Amino acid sequence: MRQSNMLIPTLREVPKEADIPSHQLLLKAGYIRKLASGVYNFLPLGKRVLRKLETIIREEMDRTGAQEIQMPSLQPAELWEASGRWETMGLELMRLNDRHERKFALGATHEEVVTSLIGDEINSYKKLPLTVYQIQNKFRDEKRPRFGLLRGREFLMKDAYSFHETYESLDEAYNRLFEAYKRVFERCGLNFRAVIADSGAMGGKDTHEFMVLSDIGEDTIAYSDQSDYAANVEMAPVLPTEEKPKTEPNKSLEKIETPNAKTMQEVADFLGHSLQEGMKAIMFKVDDRFVMVVTRGDHEVNDVKLKNLFDAKFIELATEQETIDVVGAGFGSLGPINVPEDVEVIADYGVQPLVNASCGANENGYHFRNVTPDHDFEVTQYADVRFIEEGDPSPDGHGTIQFAKGIEVGHVFKLGSLYADKLNASFLNQEGRAQTYIMGCYGIGVSRTLASVVEQFHDEQGMFWPDSLVPFDVHMINLNMKKDEQVELAETVYTNLQDQAFDVLYDDRQERAGVKFNDSDLIGITHRVTIGKRANEGYVEYKNRKTGEQQDIHVDELVSFLKTL
Amino acid sequence: MRQSNMLIPTLREVPKEADIPSHQLLLKAGYIRKLASGVYNFLPLGKRVLRKLETIIREEMDRTGAQEIQMPSLQPAELWEASGRWETMGLELMRLNDRHERKFALGATHEEVVTSLIGDEINSYKKLPLTVYQIQNKFRDEKRPRFGLLRGREFLMKDAYSFHETYESLDEAYNRLFEAYKRVFERCGLNFRAVIADSGAMGGKDTHEFMVLSDIGEDTIAYSDQSDYAANVEMAPVLPTEEKPKTEPNKSLEKIETPNAKTMQEVADFLGHSLQEGMKAIMFKVDDRFVMVVTRGDHEVNDVKLKNLFDAKFIELATEQETIDVVGAGFGSLGPINVPEDVEVIADYGVQPLVNASCGANENGYHFRNVTPDHDFEVTQYADVRFIEEGDPSPDGHGTIQFAKGIEVGHVFKLGSLYADKLNASFLNQEGRAQTYIMGCYGIGVSRTLASVVEQFHDEQGMFWPDSLVPFDVHMINLNMKKDEQVELAETVYTNLQDQAFDVLYDDRQERAGVKFNDSDLIGITHRVTIGKRANEGYVEYKNRKTGEQQDIHVDELVSFLKTL
Repeated sequence: MRQSNMLIPTLREVPKEADIPSHQLLLKAGYIRKLASGVYNFLPLGKRVLRKLETIIREEMDRTGAQEIQMPSLQPAELWEASGRWETMGLELMRLNDRHERKFALGATHEEVVTSLIGDEINSYKKLPLTVYQIQNKFRDEKRPRFGLLRGREFLMKDAYSFHETYESLDEAYNRLFEAYKRVFERCGLNFRAVIADSGAMGGKDTHEFMVLSDIGEDTIAYSDQSDYAANVEMAPVLPTEEKPKTEPNKSLEKIETPNAKTMQEVADFLGHSLQEGMKAIMFKVDDRFVMVVTRGDHEVNDVKLKNLFDAKFIELATEQETIDVVGAGFGSLGPINVPEDVEVIADYGVQPLVNASCGANENGYHFRNVTPDHDFEVTQYADVRFIEEGDPSPDGHGTIQFAKGIEVGHVFKLGSLYADKLNASFLNQEGRAQTYIMGCYGIGVSRTLASVVEQFHDEQGMFWPDSLVPFDVHMINLNMKKDEQVELAETVYTNLQDQAFDVLYDDRQERAGVKFNDSDLIGITHRVTIGKRANEGYVEYKNRKTGEQQDIHVDELVSFLKTL
Repeated sequence: MRQSNMLIPTLREVPKEADIPSHQLLLKAGYIRKLASGVYNFLPLGKRVLRKLETIIREEMDRTGAQEIQMPSLQPAELWEASGRWETMGLELMRLNDRHERKFALGATHEEVVTSLIGDEINSYKKLPLTVYQIQNKFRDEKRPRFGLLRGREFLMKDAYSFHETYESLDEAYNRLFEAYKRVFERCGLNFRAVIADSGAMGGKDTHEFMVLSDIGEDTIAYSDQSDYAANVEMAPVLPTEEKPKTEPNKSLEKIETPNAKTMQEVADFLGHSLQEGMKAIMFKVDDRFVMVVTRGDHEVNDVKLKNLFDAKFIELATEQETIDVVGAGFGSLGPINVPEDVEVIADYGVQPLVNASCGANENGYHFRNVTPDHDFEVTQYADVRFIEEGDPSPDGHGTIQFAKGIEVGHVFKLGSLYADKLNASFLNQEGRAQTYIMGCYGIGVSRTLASVVEQFHDEQGMFWPDSLVPFDVHMINLNMKKDEQVELAETVYTNLQDQAFDVLYDDRQERAGVKFNDSDLIGITHRVTIGKRANEGYVEYKNRKTGEQQDIHVDELVSFLKTL
């Protein structure tokens, strides 16, 4: 394409509304334009990248045997009422009435529609397992749309749904889709992790999120520096510390007045030891009873783990009055010594190796020192009840945990029979009995993935694209459209490259060289061919946008040179 | 794909809701399923055809130099208010409020969004002309959605918009898009006509509709049996009859009492002549004055032509009281003899050759006979004021007019500066002055085209697809999955064909032969390869779905045979 005719409205200034690199650069380089809050036009360059990304996704989905379908955005309210999400989705679900005042939702996701469809069309286990997918705009009325394509209200998604008779069959599909997602993000050149995630309110069991590592990410990932292990920081288990014989002799318990020392740090400073040598005790209400949780002073209690430990319905911090009533002291002076018998003491694994540590004395303004667990107080149960931290050993036994921020670009999820039960979608199983479907669902944020690529591939000058997504193969620049010999050479090169099936963007604009180079850096096409002063000798300049590598090449060798790249 | 795993829910019965072939067959063959009135799921076969159709459209659009973009479905109400269509689109435009009670339209079309976008991004004639397009679901709340994909509420469209400095430039783009549309529909194998259409309320000048000829079409087309000429029947001009010297001598005018003869047919019967030998006179009110329009007895007045002839603001039939007031007689007895001087007599060209014809006498219950125009009454002006009819000469001078019904699948339209004016979208022209854009718009109903193909390509057994759109290259059927030698041969053929890049649907279901053949005819894949009893000899049966051609072929020759097709 000739750039003079192409809709690539580059900007000199960073648009005010944009505060992260992908948003700024996609606007500056003329890939997208905002229509409304969280709603964007894709201009020709943006659409080209989007289509390449769609093709990658389609190829990988087809390889798994998934079948492409297309479901509507207009979805009857009845389906959402049946699943219960007409209520629970709240304002995020966009709604409208048709001319007959029938209620519709605008597709935010398609579990309801697809479950109803498959429920109607398939009545025997013989047609199972089955996976369908689609690539389609979704609508979610985000409270605060932001970060450009990362959190929009109308955005492109690939969503897939699998239907099964057994959980084994679901596991197989899950694993196949998991591998397909890895290939998709690998082909996009992304630095990402498949992260064990919280199955949350969707009622399923296993779930992984695919996270692109990025400082602007809203989620924190705990990952191993030596293996594939990665989990949402709230989900990552902490291994029990290896039990070693305690060699340090127990000193005698001492009660010390610790006036005005309330926080762990104040107590540690007062007693002259490190945070790691203190014990932190927190009282929880777990369902109907009180539980004291003890961790090392520098660790944080993870209440999801605590809730799972007790398989509790509900869990909350005890109030200060409650701790006073139960053990006789307020928040700053709690400890596991002298607690009533009916209060369980749960100690995190990190507490077990401690010797001669300190803890609250269950008396306001007093702490004990020289406290050793199992010697000076009884532990009802050691368990993993804290958040993992950087430097902890990786739960898979390989390497050490590091933290990173991530952008969620994909999600694979074992739904189980939740939706099929709600929508009464059943089939005859091998025993000839009616059974509701066991389902999985699998999403990729397509436009969000595009933005994530820019987050990982940009510099001060602009973006640069992986080969799989680059909007054109070659950016050809003629530095001076007024010089006949340069124009002539440029036209020849343009024709030759196109004849050789290169997709070329030809900057034939009447602009200064500086403007052309700046725009080219901004747009980020990998291979740049510049026609300049050496045109009369038949030489052009090649420059690689990523590596900065640069050389003069004779036009006769240009095609073969570009083909080797 | 193995049919046993594929979502192709064929039906034995014709669904009640469907009353035209494409709707019935797309449902029966498992290509689509209804989700709500006018809202359809595309199942894997339907989606495959849709994607092939999209590819054809994309290729032809790209060849014209048009650039693909993607605009949102969520469109701020402000844009529609600016164009005036927030009002005029009425209930057809679907509307919703976001969580902040901001008003949005769901994209029924994108003139507003694209005009605003280009107005914001392009400020100089140097970037013009420019054509952008997108392929996207559109939303229109049709009062009576029907005919399946032909008139839906959510449907796939390709829409394109061109922007120009001059009308000459618009003409060029229009012609280029016109040719591209012809190629699209030719590649779909459709029997269609590019039809001159009414520019209607959109304010533009030239407009063509692409009509697929079909008895279920809602529009009537007048086309030449010997040329490309075609027009909406309301638009087609009628050529003046060649003037020949009138050889028949004028007889004397006679006034005849014609009791109870009110209609043209009754008068003709009473007077004993054909309809063609009578003259029909109708009184119109054109703006502020009365005009008598005279046509041959068998012709119908086209009031659009009459309105255009007078360049009138408004036009309507005179009431019977008005005709009595003006010429002294009611509807059944009007005629051009003895009309007041201030009433113009407009005679259709078809009246001019008449000699000794009849007409009303402007006296209730009386007619004249032996009336000859220009001899017995004065004609203010001869003009083309009637509807064209089958058998009329084609307006382009080649051949004779035939009528056909058509389904509109495409539309090219010279918008002019209507939308740019409303939305204040301007640029600096070559003279350095601000000028609003001159625009064209161009639409293809993608899902409607798919249905139109089925309307033209089906028989009693099902549909059959043109090669360009067929969902699979080959339908391979194994007649008996219980016979090892057949299964073995089928697997070999399946693998071989796929290795040779054939897209194969393999019917590996445990079903009777009859069911398999019926489904195959219904689905309509052109090339069918059946593995049956001669498997042990290495023979398969080839059958062509379109031609019925059938032959046994040895597996060793199958690939080369299929490649020749």
